[in-house]
Amino acid sequence: VNVAVVGLGLMGGSLARDLSARGHRVTGADADADTVAAALREGVLHASLGMPGALDAGAVAGADVVILAVPVDRARALLHELAPALARARLVTDVGSTKADIVAAAQQAGVAERFVGSHPLAGHQSSGWAASRRDLFSGATVYLCAAAEVSPAAMNAAQDLWAEVGAVTQSMDAAEHDRQLAWTSHLPQLLATSLGLALRREGWRPAELGSGGRDMTRLAGSDPAMWTGIALQNREELLRALDEMRRELDALRAAMESGDSHELHSRFTAAREWVGNNGAEA
Amino acid sequence: VNVAVVGLGLMGGSLARDLSARGHRVTGADADADTVAAALREGVLHASLGMPGALDAGAVAGADVVILAVPVDRARALLHELAPALARARLVTDVGSTKADIVAAAQQAGVAERFVGSHPLAGHQSSGWAASRRDLFSGATVYLCAAAEVSPAAMNAAQDLWAEVGAVTQSMDAAEHDRQLAWTSHLPQLLATSLGLALRREGWRPAELGSGGRDMTRLAGSDPAMWTGIALQNREELLRALDEMRRELDALRAAMESGDSHELHSRFTAAREWVGNNGAEA
Repeated sequence: VNVAVVGLGLMGGSLARDLSARGHRVTGADADADTVAAALREGVLHASLGMPGALDAGAVAGADVVILAVPVDRARALLHELAPALARARLVTDVGSTKADIVAAAQQAGVAERFVGSHPLAGHQSSGWAASRRDLFSGATVYLCAAAEVSPAAMNAAQDLWAEVGAVTQSMDAAEHDRQLAWTSHLPQLLATSLGLALRREGWRPAELGSGGRDMTRLAGSDPAMWTGIALQNREELLRALDEMRRELDALRAAMESGDSHELHSRFTAAREWVGNNGAEA
Repeated sequence: VNVAVVGLGLMGGSLARDLSARGHRVTGADADADTVAAALREGVLHASLGMPGALDAGAVAGADVVILAVPVDRARALLHELAPALARARLVTDVGSTKADIVAAAQQAGVAERFVGSHPLAGHQSSGWAASRRDLFSGATVYLCAAAEVSPAAMNAAQDLWAEVGAVTQSMDAAEHDRQLAWTSHLPQLLATSLGLALRREGWRPAELGSGGRDMTRLAGSDPAMWTGIALQNREELLRALDEMRRELDALRAAMESGDSHELHSRFTAAREWVGNNGAEA
């Protein structure tokens, strides 16, 4: 199978490694010329597709599977740019953490029949080709989101693609996906980033953190371009999540200010009940 | 050496295990009778001291080293209760995450000469005797805080105690300690708890979290009694930290609402620069 991967970061690079090792003919592009050179040298890529924004459309047109692995806001523009070259592909997919916007973009670009958006839950604060590796997706959940007009063949191709790299797929409505991720992934990221900024402003250094503080700021190391796109594409639900978070912090603050130890104990207890074994295990 | 440990949770239980294994005569007390029975059965304790609130003062009076390993608000009351029995001890210490309050309590109780407050950075969201283990403190930093009237002998005894279980001590002013910990440990805990409560309220389950979301809610499993005491004892600095956190979240929210991708990118970048290798490593 001919696979074109645009963007060779943590996700795209890892997919390229896995698919290439399984014998597929993988071509790829990245905004960083050194990354493309490294991927060619390591034998991961069969050939270069150039750079995003100046892709070899003829080469893309020869791919059976096209994977967009760039920040979510750029994926949208890329889909429009590439649309004329996607007539032959049996699957066009992406790896972004927001799905409603890219599914709508696929409809506008006229490729919704062959587009299945993917979101592998294999993110990490490390990013770039240097962080990519074989087996990143082994055992990971991958959410699949498509428009109503998607073909069964494209959906099957997406399931096969992810099964081949060891992931478990789960179909989901794109809007519902974005609502869930706003709370379970994007809000935690915004908190880690904001905690890092508050600590930085006060002059504390990461070395002064204990293990709990390290857990709570690790995500602050995530890729800025990726998260800027996510924060804007999932803005509506995320603003709601931030407001809810603020209500919780305000209620906690009020209990502390009034010295209400009963209320504080109730809050710590309710949070512990909720987290259950997630808290105890790690 | 005769060591009395009051409170056999994660900290007290682990200290009792290490000191007992090194041949010291360890006696102990816990509010949970089953815990005391288990510690006696496992040979960790030489004898029981009863329960906090009904301690065998005569037995405590025979100890060379007395360790208070109960939630910080209870440690204060315990110090007053036990003061008459502490005349012989060459060291009285604790293991709490706040230090100004307990150092002041030692002065009020007339034992400041022999009191050195300890804060081992070995906390974990797991708690209780079941979570205690040998070598918990191996390689850990332990902050030591005492009043001006502390004797060199007591300070040496505290350093020796922690060196014996493999920890590295660092002396620190109690008020400065509490200010640092408000930001580097206590604020992260309040965020984890509040995030857990927000997710719970919205009906999400921990199983729906990705690895980042799990990192950010792990601390929500921490001991409610311990954290209620900390939140109240370190209230003043923590209220300031919560206000600063709120300013960061409000600024982030404003950038999202106005679609200011430049400002968002700057914020994610500044947080990543700050966290540096802390983010990339783990």
